[in-house]
Amino acid sequence: MDLKQIYFHLRSDIQKIENSLEQSVYSSNPILTEASVHLLKAGGKRIRPVFVLLAGKYGTYSMNRLLSVAVPLELIHMASLVHDDVIDDADLRRGSKTIKAKYDNKVAMYCGDYIFARALEQIIKIEDKEAHEVLSKGIVQMCLGEIEQIRDHNDVNVSLKTYLRRIKRKTSLLIAISCKLGAIATGAPRKVYQGLYRYGYYVGMAFQISDDILDFTGTEEQLGKPAGGDLRQGNITLPAIYALENNEHFRDLMNDIKLGNRSTDAYNEAIDLVKSSGGIDYARQMSETYLQKAYNELDKLPNIAATKSLRQIATYIGTRKY
Amino acid sequence: MDLKQIYFHLRSDIQKIENSLEQSVYSSNPILTEASVHLLKAGGKRIRPVFVLLAGKYGTYSMNRLLSVAVPLELIHMASLVHDDVIDDADLRRGSKTIKAKYDNKVAMYCGDYIFARALEQIIKIEDKEAHEVLSKGIVQMCLGEIEQIRDHNDVNVSLKTYLRRIKRKTSLLIAISCKLGAIATGAPRKVYQGLYRYGYYVGMAFQISDDILDFTGTEEQLGKPAGGDLRQGNITLPAIYALENNEHFRDLMNDIKLGNRSTDAYNEAIDLVKSSGGIDYARQMSETYLQKAYNELDKLPNIAATKSLRQIATYIGTRKY
Repeated sequence: MDLKQIYFHLRSDIQKIENSLEQSVYSSNPILTEASVHLLKAGGKRIRPVFVLLAGKYGTYSMNRLLSVAVPLELIHMASLVHDDVIDDADLRRGSKTIKAKYDNKVAMYCGDYIFARALEQIIKIEDKEAHEVLSKGIVQMCLGEIEQIRDHNDVNVSLKTYLRRIKRKTSLLIAISCKLGAIATGAPRKVYQGLYRYGYYVGMAFQISDDILDFTGTEEQLGKPAGGDLRQGNITLPAIYALENNEHFRDLMNDIKLGNRSTDAYNEAIDLVKSSGGIDYARQMSETYLQKAYNELDKLPNIAATKSLRQIATYIGTRKY
Repeated sequence: MDLKQIYFHLRSDIQKIENSLEQSVYSSNPILTEASVHLLKAGGKRIRPVFVLLAGKYGTYSMNRLLSVAVPLELIHMASLVHDDVIDDADLRRGSKTIKAKYDNKVAMYCGDYIFARALEQIIKIEDKEAHEVLSKGIVQMCLGEIEQIRDHNDVNVSLKTYLRRIKRKTSLLIAISCKLGAIATGAPRKVYQGLYRYGYYVGMAFQISDDILDFTGTEEQLGKPAGGDLRQGNITLPAIYALENNEHFRDLMNDIKLGNRSTDAYNEAIDLVKSSGGIDYARQMSETYLQKAYNELDKLPNIAATKSLRQIATYIGTRKY
């Protein structure tokens, strides 16, 4: 089952979010509008808005209230992608040119700033004190996560703990917050939104780990960009961390790369070594452990249709190929 | 009287703010730390922290509480400067190389993001609801102001109203907020912090207009960068707006520039035309009007030593040469 099928019954509400996103990034500056619309059209799974909508099913579903949290959440995610692509020198994302590649670093910088400002503008209008606080704290953690990624670039001594904290800040926190806010916005009970938060956190961790696996195992067609991009960009992810600890040859090679041997051959060898080191299996097991925890949280939630959808999303993450 | 003399009795508290700023931008990433420290050492007038400290004199002065608002305010200002320099392609600021010139747009982008994140991190710790709200709303306005500046680049039809709103968002709002927050943080009465807010707004407008005048009339030595930079960067400020309305030749020349005639001769002629058009005098009068409003606000405040210092700052702005 793919995501589109899971989302099928939400499609009209997702379209409303899509329309609202488009309105949010409209600007009187032509380059800003063009760049932002290019980013929107490049799509993405809109997984955060979907979590908001599903979590909204546990309270008194109100599309207006859900829009007010789903839109800024997705805007923040989009803004962070635009700046991430500058930091990572990434030219492609989901098969489309990134803003920094289509224009330059400067346009990408202010386009990200602009989308971020639009998100903040919407966040300060949220009157619910808890929702407001959850979002503000989440943004700070995300910003710090972006910076940690820069700090850890090409760091061959990066620990498992550091990696997990980075992906928590980079990905799973925003997903956990999406789940929590959807429930808060519709007045779901505290016990429910706390459970949804934990579900989102676990699923987010599994999602990012599977993303990091696919970056090694996916084809260029599946990924919309060449495989092994993380390693080439200096992002040491879970499969590579395992290989660094268990394969001396890989460690030596990565030290060479750090010292400046950035040849295509060196990277290709490094990618092969990660695959043969057992790092992929190790990462798969860890992703599976997180998914198991996510399922456990769902078992404690009311048995409604949304719970089934959330279970399907977890299953999708465990088996996805792109 | 120059600013240093006005600040003299605050120097030990300003030093505490300086130390706290330094701690705030410390990072485990060497380039980030180097770039941020370079930015700190390049200095600046620290006028926002000074307003916070002076406003703190109207309540129960507490350095800890004042630090908690002065430091994020100055960090936000610093972050916005780093990104502004990318947008404006500026190589020099206060005689020092900008981060985008010393490194590149990419480093400037993430250095700004980093400092911004550090500011947000401190802001969400502020428990006073009103202080928190004032800061959050101020940040959004500032972000929107940055974007307006991009939108208005080389726009020969930019109106006075648009210009005033842009400098409000870009400069005077943060100064008004500095005054207000210093007073709120020390528990000053509502009437006082509202008056201080208005004073800060008026003084901020006068400050930015005088900055925009100096960009035309200052020497390279005084400015720490070549004169006429605003025009060269496409920022149409008050003296140029007056010239556009009152000098047809200047309007034609600016249209040429907009269409691509970016020669040094064209810019030099444009700068001379602004000076001979009466635009400088017009801007001086407007700055003077704002200063008069600022003085009026001070007349309604308690007659304490801080009021005298705030009056001296207003006078300094009216007469400053750099």
